[in-house]
Amino acid sequence: MKATLINIGDELLIGQVVNTNASWMAEKLNDVNVEVERIVTVADNPREIIDALENELHFADVVILTGGLGPTKDDMTKQVLCRFFDAKMVVHQPTLKHVKHYFEMRGLPFSELNHHQADVPDCCTVLFNEVGTAPGMWFEKSGKIIVSLPGVPSEMMFLMTKYVLPQLEARHADVVILHHTILTQGIGESFLADLIADWENHLPDGFKLAYLPQAGLVRLRLTARGTEKMNLHKKMADELEKLSDLIQPYFVGESNDTLELIVNKLFTKNRLTLAVAESCSGGALAAKIVSVAGSSAYFKGGLVAYSNEIKESMLGVSKEILAQFGAVSQQTVEAMAKGCRERFGVDYAVATTGIAGPTGGSDEKPVGTVWIGVASPSGVTAQKYQLGNDRPKVIERTVNQLLGDLIKILNRDGKNNV
Amino acid sequence: MKATLINIGDELLIGQVVNTNASWMAEKLNDVNVEVERIVTVADNPREIIDALENELHFADVVILTGGLGPTKDDMTKQVLCRFFDAKMVVHQPTLKHVKHYFEMRGLPFSELNHHQADVPDCCTVLFNEVGTAPGMWFEKSGKIIVSLPGVPSEMMFLMTKYVLPQLEARHADVVILHHTILTQGIGESFLADLIADWENHLPDGFKLAYLPQAGLVRLRLTARGTEKMNLHKKMADELEKLSDLIQPYFVGESNDTLELIVNKLFTKNRLTLAVAESCSGGALAAKIVSVAGSSAYFKGGLVAYSNEIKESMLGVSKEILAQFGAVSQQTVEAMAKGCRERFGVDYAVATTGIAGPTGGSDEKPVGTVWIGVASPSGVTAQKYQLGNDRPKVIERTVNQLLGDLIKILNRDGKNNV
Repeated sequence: MKATLINIGDELLIGQVVNTNASWMAEKLNDVNVEVERIVTVADNPREIIDALENELHFADVVILTGGLGPTKDDMTKQVLCRFFDAKMVVHQPTLKHVKHYFEMRGLPFSELNHHQADVPDCCTVLFNEVGTAPGMWFEKSGKIIVSLPGVPSEMMFLMTKYVLPQLEARHADVVILHHTILTQGIGESFLADLIADWENHLPDGFKLAYLPQAGLVRLRLTARGTEKMNLHKKMADELEKLSDLIQPYFVGESNDTLELIVNKLFTKNRLTLAVAESCSGGALAAKIVSVAGSSAYFKGGLVAYSNEIKESMLGVSKEILAQFGAVSQQTVEAMAKGCRERFGVDYAVATTGIAGPTGGSDEKPVGTVWIGVASPSGVTAQKYQLGNDRPKVIERTVNQLLGDLIKILNRDGKNNV
Repeated sequence: MKATLINIGDELLIGQVVNTNASWMAEKLNDVNVEVERIVTVADNPREIIDALENELHFADVVILTGGLGPTKDDMTKQVLCRFFDAKMVVHQPTLKHVKHYFEMRGLPFSELNHHQADVPDCCTVLFNEVGTAPGMWFEKSGKIIVSLPGVPSEMMFLMTKYVLPQLEARHADVVILHHTILTQGIGESFLADLIADWENHLPDGFKLAYLPQAGLVRLRLTARGTEKMNLHKKMADELEKLSDLIQPYFVGESNDTLELIVNKLFTKNRLTLAVAESCSGGALAAKIVSVAGSSAYFKGGLVAYSNEIKESMLGVSKEILAQFGAVSQQTVEAMAKGCRERFGVDYAVATTGIAGPTGGSDEKPVGTVWIGVASPSGVTAQKYQLGNDRPKVIERTVNQLLGDLIKILNRDGKNNV
């Protein structure tokens, strides 16, 4: 099945917004065997939208449009589709009820414009948008599928995951696709590729490996396509076993789970508590932990100790340590982790201190120098890393490195009950 | 002048890489009066590239291609262009010399494949690539301009900045484009549209308004095109004045700056200090503040008080307040802000407490209920918000709402020296 994505929005054409929807959608569609052949971005303009749709329907079996479904007059996708399908606009009652409720909940007045959010062309199947006000729409015409989704990433992702991907996958149920993701840390992409080159070159037919590097970690994604399910599962297990042996020292986890979700599961299942003391990561670590629902069950809180005074007054790091070794040192990070563990009264406490840049580096401690510390019932450990010289990346890598280290330490402590 | 971007690369179509080139190019082209009407992503495949090029030349005056210029066999843009222009491949001697030098410098062997990096169709003007090995190419045919650039962002940016943008700008020095962005907060997109509908409907010819909503705020971007610069500036100023009057209660700032950058400028220029106490935002506020380089000059740190014990022990919120009013209450958020201001010894302290969800809500305090508190030299204020029911959005909106409120309070306190 071949697909085109049409992303609608002036904001994409003036460069105000980076098109992250396209890459997310392309990856997920690939997972269900739908090949994205073209991605087209056009303006919120009826002529442009129609031209793009007509043109792309020549090549593609599926065209997915995003954007232009808001309530304001620069959003015109719905009207364009209604005309394209020669349909009549009707009110979708469940959506109307939902939109009214949405406004009531927020104590907002419900205007005429908002009422139109519930209008849909009468020839479409509505994809009910629980997480926003613009409904998704599924059309079929001359054997082709046309789907229209809101451009807000969280709403698009919800509708893709709940409706579009399963329904597209069901259209070619004869092909079996398996995916398996392995999380590695502590080895760069090219070195990892060298390490497993021989294994990769001898993968069975229908198998494909993708390297998905993120700040400080590399995900390996093994995809297998075939027609016999049992056989494919067996082959997949064999290949994963060989791979696991090769990458053992860098292995962190075996799922598509994010690091923060793995941490969440480990702490929750093992009934442990966690607190964080952050300098260079400045709250990004706590924010990552808290982004997972249910984190309040194990996460007690954290301290962003961005200045030395705060490291002293609120974590009990001694003036002497700060004066003798500096804020970015093994001694300081260990004292931070220890102080954090005591003051928050938790089982595990982690700490970061480093130079995120762009200024503040020296020959001895260049930008990107980061110390990570972990205090646990079995003692305090610290590790130094060099994490590049780009401020946002240094922060992101610090967070990922710390979460990965924490998972390894929990595993070492026998807490691997996920 | 109308342009299309054609981004070539399989990695874009499987979602492995986010197309950041497109947004960068679109923004820069807009700045020199070149309107990007379409952005098309296609595979590294001769047929796809040719089809896209032929198709886009119907609409566009300028087509800029990126990608597919590397030395490996999956890079085929140059061969495709050579055939398209019915040209002959020739060696570009300055590039050959440069590529050889490039390999020498790095101690790498110079292969036959690398030699081909210096080949170019004889009908093009070479855009000399000082920062990489693949030359840019500029073609003209039947009044249209076709430019081919490497896909590596740093190389693309270098060639765009040094050659492409100045040369395109020189082609239509007669047209003027002005952009102006206004930041609003506390009003949804549709209500804002209602509020300014009359003004928007009467904008002068050549003026266009775009709504750019983000979590908890809406940016308004007014664009004006014309031929007389002075006149256009005058008209723009008139329209902005009318707009400012209409949206006064929701006005936050007048630039393209992010909220965290405005906060950074306000605190730094006024030599004030800030600390944060976060419950529901869980570190995301501190992380946003710290994402701006130079924040250590005014940001002392923060406390993520995710549990009640920590609100008591580390912020001094009394047991009685927590018991009587609950963690999500005006009394608690005020005590948090006050305690934070004292313990961190800062001029301004802000606090958040709320229910991010998905669980933890009640009839009285549903998911999305968030209290925001600000303690300043002039006292403590608190405000309640309903910020939806989607956990990541509640957190993001809390952060944006708080930064916006803080800016308004600083302005109210006469600290508007940005």
